Amino acid sequence: MSKLISPSFEAMEALILRLQSTICAELAEVDGGAEFVAHPWRRETGGGGLTRVIQQGKVFEKGGVNTSSVYGELPPGLAEQLGTTPGAFAACGLSIVIHPRSPRIPTIHLNIRYFQLENGQSWYAGGMDLTPYYPHPEDFVHFHRVLHQACEAALPGSYQKFKAQCDRYFYLPHRGEMRGVGGVFYDHLDGANPSHFELNRRIGEAFLPAYLPIVLRRKDEPFTDQDREFQLIRRGRYVEFNLLYDRGTAFGLQSGGRVESIFISLPLEVKFPYNWQAPPGSPYAEMTRYYQPRDWLDETG
Amino acid sequence: MSKLISPSFEAMEALILRLQSTICAELAEVDGGAEFVAHPWRRETGGGGLTRVIQQGKVFEKGGVNTSSVYGELPPGLAEQLGTTPGAFAACGLSIVIHPRSPRIPTIHLNIRYFQLENGQSWYAGGMDLTPYYPHPEDFVHFHRVLHQACEAALPGSYQKFKAQCDRYFYLPHRGEMRGVGGVFYDHLDGANPSHFELNRRIGEAFLPAYLPIVLRRKDEPFTDQDREFQLIRRGRYVEFNLLYDRGTAFGLQSGGRVESIFISLPLEVKFPYNWQAPPGSPYAEMTRYYQPRDWLDETG
Repeated sequence: MSKLISPSFEAMEALILRLQSTICAELAEVDGGAEFVAHPWRRETGGGGLTRVIQQGKVFEKGGVNTSSVYGELPPGLAEQLGTTPGAFAACGLSIVIHPRSPRIPTIHLNIRYFQLENGQSWYAGGMDLTPYYPHPEDFVHFHRVLHQACEAALPGSYQKFKAQCDRYFYLPHRGEMRGVGGVFYDHLDGANPSHFELNRRIGEAFLPAYLPIVLRRKDEPFTDQDREFQLIRRGRYVEFNLLYDRGTAFGLQSGGRVESIFISLPLEVKFPYNWQAPPGSPYAEMTRYYQPRDWLDETG
Repeated sequence: MSKLISPSFEAMEALILRLQSTICAELAEVDGGAEFVAHPWRRETGGGGLTRVIQQGKVFEKGGVNTSSVYGELPPGLAEQLGTTPGAFAACGLSIVIHPRSPRIPTIHLNIRYFQLENGQSWYAGGMDLTPYYPHPEDFVHFHRVLHQACEAALPGSYQKFKAQCDRYFYLPHRGEMRGVGGVFYDHLDGANPSHFELNRRIGEAFLPAYLPIVLRRKDEPFTDQDREFQLIRRGRYVEFNLLYDRGTAFGLQSGGRVESIFISLPLEVKFPYNWQAPPGSPYAEMTRYYQPRDWLDETG
């Protein structure tokens, strides 16, 4: 047990375990075909996690709802990267990535986490973002409205800032486009401020209301081979982002996390065709235009 | 035109263009179904390239035989990464990645390049490596013998060193395994030494004798759905390596190379299943054991 396990750490751990259990139960019920298997793992140098995975379900092709609590000495390189000095650390978080089978249902990602250092620094971080493959603007409006509500309830005035940070973070500079239609993203929020725990809690609790109505509305919608092809290609961009730029993936690999738990974020099937372009006038051309920053609260959806 | 275009640079450019043309012609003939299309591109800040791509052929699912010659000012960050000071640079190279359709034919990668800096530094670099998906040890022995011959003809005693460097370079630390069965890899070989140009020439000319006999021997071999599945999963590791660790990919993206030309290295179809393990006793378990450093010259193949 680390000396850094504080009441705040324990509150965060309780939150992520409760959310993990509720969210897995609800998603499995919606799927109706597969269950979430549970893989606990230990980290050699301190802590571990509980990976819960659904694969080859009726609705969900591959997804993970993972918690981890790790502690020990900051691995070399990581201290520098976090802008701090070497020493003991403790971190815990919930990380969700769900890749549905149907291209009419978006991929979703959520992360909430808490970080504590020996030198007294501590912070909350997290976010949620949506990666759709079909132009259903009303779904994106719904998603952003739920996030807006969650942010404003915890930290009035915070949605616009966290929304802009999300647009900047989930961005592929080599493609000049976002990974999806954004959401909210925040990092290094002072751990001593209880509103920041409250934000993490509200975002975690917003997962089901933000996502389930979209899943339920779209899961029986028919789709074409072209829709599936576009989804597989966009999943390729998802892989590009996660392996080239995502700090969470890099942190996980560098801090000795469990590889298969980290790569739960990679979709089951992916395509990387050479020089693919969306046919002008197609739904995919419309969808591609939405992979740019946009004020989704203002849309009439 | 850059002031750094020297006789050595021009010799290297002539070599890569000649090899590109010969190799595309031979591979297209073996394929018999698709041709290499040609996409020339210009780099805004100096130079450009000729991308030649085959896709959805009878034998080759996706492949590129690309040349580029770029020059200008070293982009910020890159100078530091190369261990040098900012200033003008010129670089040219040939880069090949071929992903065949059949899991019985290995993926192959070749790169030869030349780099010149304003401060007088210049160097050759390159290598060739094989990523097979089926345990045909005799193919891997053949491949390494051809590389051995090429290295020893240009630089006696060099094969073992470059082979060891390849084993270290094409390594996925998070998986504890190599990308394939290795080959040779060299970097920063003094540009003033003509034997180093000779090495690049010999490696470039070894591409067809190293690869074609394997392709011809395997292209009509029947394969199973399980073989294909294993190939798609191993292609996933190929993607992991190229996006997480490959310096060539990072250099290409940072130096403003053409994205679709750089990502020609990514296979068309890929799978990332959760926690896949090769069934004990299967050909895939045998193949997995070969993704570790091994003396292939000593095998009786």
